[in-house]
Amino acid sequence: MTEQSAASTPVRVVVWGENRHEKVEPHVAEIYPNGMHETIREGIEENLGASATVTTATLDDPEHGLTEEVLAATDVLVWWGHAAHDEVSDEVVERVHSHVLAGMGLLVLHSGHWSKIFGKLMGTSCTLRWRSEADREIVWTVDPTHPISRGIPHPFIIPQQEMYGEFFDIPAPDELVFLSTFSGGEVFRSGCTFKRGFGKIFFFSPGDQDFPVYHHSDVRRVIANGVEWARTVRPERAVPVLLRYETEDFYTGRDYTGAMNNSEKVE
Amino acid sequence: MTEQSAASTPVRVVVWGENRHEKVEPHVAEIYPNGMHETIREGIEENLGASATVTTATLDDPEHGLTEEVLAATDVLVWWGHAAHDEVSDEVVERVHSHVLAGMGLLVLHSGHWSKIFGKLMGTSCTLRWRSEADREIVWTVDPTHPISRGIPHPFIIPQQEMYGEFFDIPAPDELVFLSTFSGGEVFRSGCTFKRGFGKIFFFSPGDQDFPVYHHSDVRRVIANGVEWARTVRPERAVPVLLRYETEDFYTGRDYTGAMNNSEKVE
Amino acid sequence: MTEQSAASTPVRVVVWGENRHEKVEPHVAEIYPNGMHETIREGIEENLGASATVTTATLDDPEHGLTEEVLAATDVLVWWGHAAHDEVSDEVVERVHSHVLAGMGLLVLHSGHWSKIFGKLMGTSCTLRWRSEADREIVWTVDPTHPISRGIPHPFIIPQQEMYGEFFDIPAPDELVFLSTFSGGEVFRSGCTFKRGFGKIFFFSPGDQDFPVYHHSDVRRVIANGVEWARTVRPERAVPVLLRYETEDFYTGRDYTGAMNNSEKVE
Amino acid sequence: MTEQSAASTPVRVVVWGENRHEKVEPHVAEIYPNGMHETIREGIEENLGASATVTTATLDDPEHGLTEEVLAATDVLVWWGHAAHDEVSDEVVERVHSHVLAGMGLLVLHSGHWSKIFGKLMGTSCTLRWRSEADREIVWTVDPTHPISRGIPHPFIIPQQEMYGEFFDIPAPDELVFLSTFSGGEVFRSGCTFKRGFGKIFFFSPGDQDFPVYHHSDVRRVIANGVEWARTVRPERAVPVLLRYETEDFYTGRDYTGAMNNSEKVE
Repeated sequence: MTEQSAASTPVRVVVWGENRHEKVEPHVAEIYPNGMHETIREGIEENLGASATVTTATLDDPEHGLTEEVLAATDVLVWWGHAAHDEVSDEVVERVHSHVLAGMGLLVLHSGHWSKIFGKLMGTSCTLRWRSEADREIVWTVDPTHPISRGIPHPFIIPQQEMYGEFFDIPAPDELVFLSTFSGGEVFRSGCTFKRGFGKIFFFSPGDQDFPVYHHSDVRRVIANGVEWARTVRPERAVPVLLRYETEDFYTGRDYTGAMNNSEKVE
Repeated sequence: MTEQSAASTPVRVVVWGENRHEKVEPHVAEIYPNGMHETIREGIEENLGASATVTTATLDDPEHGLTEEVLAATDVLVWWGHAAHDEVSDEVVERVHSHVLAGMGLLVLHSGHWSKIFGKLMGTSCTLRWRSEADREIVWTVDPTHPISRGIPHPFIIPQQEMYGEFFDIPAPDELVFLSTFSGGEVFRSGCTFKRGFGKIFFFSPGDQDFPVYHHSDVRRVIANGVEWARTVRPERAVPVLLRYETEDFYTGRDYTGAMNNSEKVE
Repeated sequence: MTEQSAASTPVRVVVWGENRHEKVEPHVAEIYPNGMHETIREGIEENLGASATVTTATLDDPEHGLTEEVLAATDVLVWWGHAAHDEVSDEVVERVHSHVLAGMGLLVLHSGHWSKIFGKLMGTSCTLRWRSEADREIVWTVDPTHPISRGIPHPFIIPQQEMYGEFFDIPAPDELVFLSTFSGGEVFRSGCTFKRGFGKIFFFSPGDQDFPVYHHSDVRRVIANGVEWARTVRPERAVPVLLRYETEDFYTGRDYTGAMNNSEKVE
Repeated sequence: MTEQSAASTPVRVVVWGENRHEKVEPHVAEIYPNGMHETIREGIEENLGASATVTTATLDDPEHGLTEEVLAATDVLVWWGHAAHDEVSDEVVERVHSHVLAGMGLLVLHSGHWSKIFGKLMGTSCTLRWRSEADREIVWTVDPTHPISRGIPHPFIIPQQEMYGEFFDIPAPDELVFLSTFSGGEVFRSGCTFKRGFGKIFFFSPGDQDFPVYHHSDVRRVIANGVEWARTVRPERAVPVLLRYETEDFYTGRDYTGAMNNSEKVE
């Protein structure tokens, strides 16, 4: 695909949902009758229209719905998980990780902070403080020229939310876009961007199974903005590799193709 | 240990060396007759004197010399590995990772860029371009008020070195302290700091088994500065954890102690 | 203007050129017969086509061609100056500064590092080391997913250039996009982004009056990418202001409109 | 002074206070009977003891108490101003600015956000939202390994404070150390570090004339930590300069000594 066509084709999005709370907890099913992933999908489609094609995948699909073929055709993956992080297979996590390093965008939502894929990309514990007592969350923009904050009111208010508070054990984000406060007095770095390999990552904390957060128009807009931002400008999908270059030959790397396999390295 | 005594006691350093090249390659043994780890240790002692106590550990020691007891008594771990990254046991890597998140400082030297522990902390491929043809390396300071650049000439010159060049697939460093150029025209972010959990990490690329880089006085000074910088100011050693806090109780977290174990999380 | 139309209308660019070397130095006039600003304009038009409308302004125009009316109708200002930084009136510098804080994009090229406007936005001396002896400059990408590096070879080579070297006294950039090496061995942070107020700033060092750098296709592409990146996503043009907000009224700030005038502040 | 002696000599601190509210407002005089600057001084002495020598200077002193001689003998300047920012002479601001670029540390407290010196160093409007209605401020640490957060409770609480809220128009800080929330729901980046030239700057927002904030033990500890952090590790005091270097001579810059005077530059 040429750069031109990449720019003008719809962004291909997969919304991945754990889809467990919705099945076993009636109050969640009431808020999200088709599953949280479907509500998240609707929010993206509502904002991006024909400039996005959005599909979904869930934990119980074969290979969690994230086969090599699916990921190769995905520009941006949106991730929501919570109770069953441990059930996600390490093989799929490795696959998603490779695709992120190779250029696939990734949005990690809310309780996805403790998913295997987010922990693997961050290198930290990704722990935080929390309380689910229907705090009011206020989301403030601290990077008002960032594409992800485009068109977002400053601040916007989520009437009822789980509290996520600092210290949030993540690397200092490349860009801090949003900060959230809670009626109990806590604060959270709720909108953070990171680059890893050739991939762009956006973590956005608002969103929960117990509250109708993914029906909130500003939350939907932020996620849609995040999708647009996370799409790479690079035409190819390839993991960075370790290569040897002769003096005065800056372009023809040789010898090493197994960049992720330390055992093949003999410099 | 109180904060006061932490500040006034010697920093406890372990220099970890793979110690393989020295054993099998005579030209390396000639440069580093007691092993690279011993030369690195000498450089730290030369600069820090009585304010540091430095020991060594190597790959072939039981548990690679990095038992729980050793790490618990280590303020800063210095890591050099290359040909045998793959032989480092995953269990030891997990242990070192936990100690870094809990507050142990870590210096990763040169080819340690591709060690398991560095990859796990960075979340990226940590690949780069390279060539071992005795390039001249010039190291430039771009953060002249950083404690790690204290007393370091701008620039300093390493007559013969392996070339490491960009693109270096790491997260954008928290602080970029040094940049290196090579006679072939390449550039490398050669001195980078990162924080992960409660731990401070310094990556410094100069240093190689084929050249006497760890005998270079400025390289030694940088490593010693890095050791001092990487020591935490926190008195306790504890991994960040996920805890629930009641409204208006900001200090008594409850319920979650298994921060690194996703399976225990039921928010 | 609505956000939608802002996104789909051409970006309005003004290339500001000092236009002095070209008039008094024949060897410069030979390289840039219509002035450097015209060559820079051509490069932008060559890359952006109908998606940009590019005009020029020079030091000797009334008010340096940068009246309130001109700036109000400018999305991105591109700045090249060198020998006559001191002749730029403080009033015009204040005006440009206000427009940047209010959302106008700014590209500062090469010797513009020592312009009044760049110094005022950075707060530092913006000094560096230099030598004009036709060094070869190699430009390396260290942020390969950044929109400004889109389609740029890694590396690209400028056969003859003035050397700019570290230490470059700027604030640590928000994003480091390019690093340059010179045949003499120096290094420079040659592509840096900054946000100030609601404005986006890109500094790009390649480019000089003595060498045909603005005819180089990759240099032109970088500048065009920078123009696209620096355009704000905010529909309005307004400087941030200091305002008082009543409790529970997050949107209606009162009392302070003279944000840049400290004397009016009585909190 | 050698590096060794610099490390072991007391840090020389000047606390600069505007000292106007205390003179004309009885309720302020009651809280700070000797002036706010004296209370701030006490807090530093209380924490640093013999490792600091702290003096004060005020607006009404000749040259505001900030002569060339005073600044040349100051390691760290602490700045509190509010109602009379405009009365600070531009000449003194230039002098302080030069000393910061040359290596003097600077702490800017609370309403100092709108001082001339802070604006000059930041390059932005430094505006924010505010309300003085005795909000409770909670200060959270988001960089728990930073020397400035050493020994600081997480969080600590200031019972009554002026509210400062986002958007705070500053450059993205090099390090974000503290975030504050207010009982009204606002959030503020309340502890930020910046480097400019060879100088280290710490902005800390808690502190106000209407509330006894500088009597708060944690606030005092943060300021003392900031003083220790802001002291440079460089032995000399010199502004960065623009210099020409011959090929292969990396150390002997020539020709340009007037780095702050653009008119002298003829590259």
